[in-house]
Amino acid sequence: MLTFTVEKTDSLARLGTLVLPHGTVSTPCFMPVGTQGSVKTLTPAEVMGTGAEMIVCNTYHLYLRPGHGRVQAAGGLSKFIGWDRPILTDSGGFQVYSLAALTRVTDRGAEFQSHVDGSRHLFTPELVVEIQEALGPDIAMCLDECPPYPISRPVAEAAAARTSLWAERCCRTRKPETNLFGIVQGATYADLREESARALVALDLPGYAIGGLCLGEASNVTYEMVGRVTPLLPAERPRYLMGAGYPEDIVASVRLGIDMFDCVLPTRNGRTGTAFTASGRVAIRNSKHADESGSLDAACDCYTCRTFSRAYLRHLFVVGEALGPKLLTLHNISFFQRLMQGIRAAIGRGEFESWTSRFLSRYRTGADPAEKEKDR
Amino acid sequence: MLTFTVEKTDSLARLGTLVLPHGTVSTPCFMPVGTQGSVKTLTPAEVMGTGAEMIVCNTYHLYLRPGHGRVQAAGGLSKFIGWDRPILTDSGGFQVYSLAALTRVTDRGAEFQSHVDGSRHLFTPELVVEIQEALGPDIAMCLDECPPYPISRPVAEAAAARTSLWAERCCRTRKPETNLFGIVQGATYADLREESARALVALDLPGYAIGGLCLGEASNVTYEMVGRVTPLLPAERPRYLMGAGYPEDIVASVRLGIDMFDCVLPTRNGRTGTAFTASGRVAIRNSKHADESGSLDAACDCYTCRTFSRAYLRHLFVVGEALGPKLLTLHNISFFQRLMQGIRAAIGRGEFESWTSRFLSRYRTGADPAEKEKDR
Repeated sequence: MLTFTVEKTDSLARLGTLVLPHGTVSTPCFMPVGTQGSVKTLTPAEVMGTGAEMIVCNTYHLYLRPGHGRVQAAGGLSKFIGWDRPILTDSGGFQVYSLAALTRVTDRGAEFQSHVDGSRHLFTPELVVEIQEALGPDIAMCLDECPPYPISRPVAEAAAARTSLWAERCCRTRKPETNLFGIVQGATYADLREESARALVALDLPGYAIGGLCLGEASNVTYEMVGRVTPLLPAERPRYLMGAGYPEDIVASVRLGIDMFDCVLPTRNGRTGTAFTASGRVAIRNSKHADESGSLDAACDCYTCRTFSRAYLRHLFVVGEALGPKLLTLHNISFFQRLMQGIRAAIGRGEFESWTSRFLSRYRTGADPAEKEKDR
Repeated sequence: MLTFTVEKTDSLARLGTLVLPHGTVSTPCFMPVGTQGSVKTLTPAEVMGTGAEMIVCNTYHLYLRPGHGRVQAAGGLSKFIGWDRPILTDSGGFQVYSLAALTRVTDRGAEFQSHVDGSRHLFTPELVVEIQEALGPDIAMCLDECPPYPISRPVAEAAAARTSLWAERCCRTRKPETNLFGIVQGATYADLREESARALVALDLPGYAIGGLCLGEASNVTYEMVGRVTPLLPAERPRYLMGAGYPEDIVASVRLGIDMFDCVLPTRNGRTGTAFTASGRVAIRNSKHADESGSLDAACDCYTCRTFSRAYLRHLFVVGEALGPKLLTLHNISFFQRLMQGIRAAIGRGEFESWTSRFLSRYRTGADPAEKEKDR
């Protein structure tokens, strides 16, 4: 149900092809986030138009609303949401920790109160696999324990150990056709990360994710952890860095051998008025754009950039029109897809390092000063 | 700069062609409302895809933000907002009364405080024409005095008289190429309506609107006023009933000889979860739709109806995804355009009466009970 082929490598960077039940995905790939079964503000047709081949939905959210049984009865998640391409469902471990009121975590599972109505639920590794199998994604994720950053070593150690224990149980309960990925935890402790990776690899899963990073730690720490884990993961399996991220983080992680990415950045920042462009981030509300007849990103051929001026986009945000967030989201996801296309082409040519230098040099120099300050 | 041809009549109903600087519009037409330069939640391409040939923007809003000078410098409203078809700008008279804090109305003009920042402004007939000429719409509207419903006869009389006075001044100040429509006022007093119509017709304007209706009065009162005014308007000029409306109001008014309509209903109701369908209005949040695999409107071929189930549309509204309002807005505007296509085809065949009976019979019987109660 999953075939992954590394077509070419350039140092540690990999150009790959991931074949899944709903289609084929070229890697390294960036998966837009459609938490509740919708990539916010966009139609599935618009998401496809950006070149995105796979999206991420969320088990925690879809379990609460509309309910996995309802989605299953509707013919599965792809059919229900009108996205006829691969979907990965995150397990909900992260949301249980970040969004719900977590009441208790034991080896049995995570007890939480719904952020919607306060109702009490228990996510066990078995239930989370069952929910995902009802949703019917192309890739499902093991339940993990994902504590916030920073945490002490004992807490990190316990969370990583429990994540490994839960992965074993997810593995035992899954149906043979379920493409279940494990999630490496261990916070910012390199030896815990390595131990976590080894435990998961022993389960011989079809793919491996690195979770619990990009939570506020310094970039060099993120990269160090990724660099410690990837060599331990089997070369012939896809590697997924969860929650990354910024274009700088993506190129740095591809360089360390990561194949798959997801992040809310292009959608969330698009909604709040920040655009990613070839020459850096642009805060579209800035008054300097009020009379700018030029497009958002001269290097972009998305509908937003082909059709509208910065002045009009700014106007939409200033007056609070819903079209503004939608047009910037569309552009941002197009930008991330073009970034991945550039990365893949560069690896294919064996020029990943030089391409990255050129990309970053342009991306870093042109940004709005106010936006630069936000860079990590 | 404006040519209107009545191609065919069916009793009082008229099939027409309106040729404007930015294109040709078949009438009777329904113009979606893009108050601030955006038909809420939709791209111009999506609005065009519904079959809409003309939209309405608002002078009051665009004067305040981004400012008419800025729009003019950007090459005019069509270019600024990416809508390469005809635009009508409402004068802002209605908004000054309904939205701004109105401070004083004299024959000189209407003084108001901006709803955005409380700043003080004076709309004179001359300024409102100047603003619209800077925006560059295909059709501009005279400044009118549009009091709320209900009002006493003396107030209605004064408002209608002032509207006529202002129309004269608008007429004198306009450039020759400006297609300026007058607005008949007179509230619900038939003789005032007639007097207002006669005064405007004396100005020999390229088109005439009926304002100050559909403000909460009973439908039969609306129709009575329209029926008293239309016979006084020149047959060879387009007639525009402002702010109508419900499908029932549109067919009733076409029957009385109205050619143009605009209303926020399809956009506003779409955003709040009410869909117009061939078998009546549908409240998509209703729990009965939670497992409905059928489309919103079996008679509709819009993207929403071709792609999604009622269950998914309901889910989007229940969880608050921006895609929900957008998909219902897209459907609603498609519905109104198809309604107008049906009306035009029926007039063309000389079967307007029988078509209307069939349309209303189906539209009225199938509605959700909760929605029926909202019907006027």
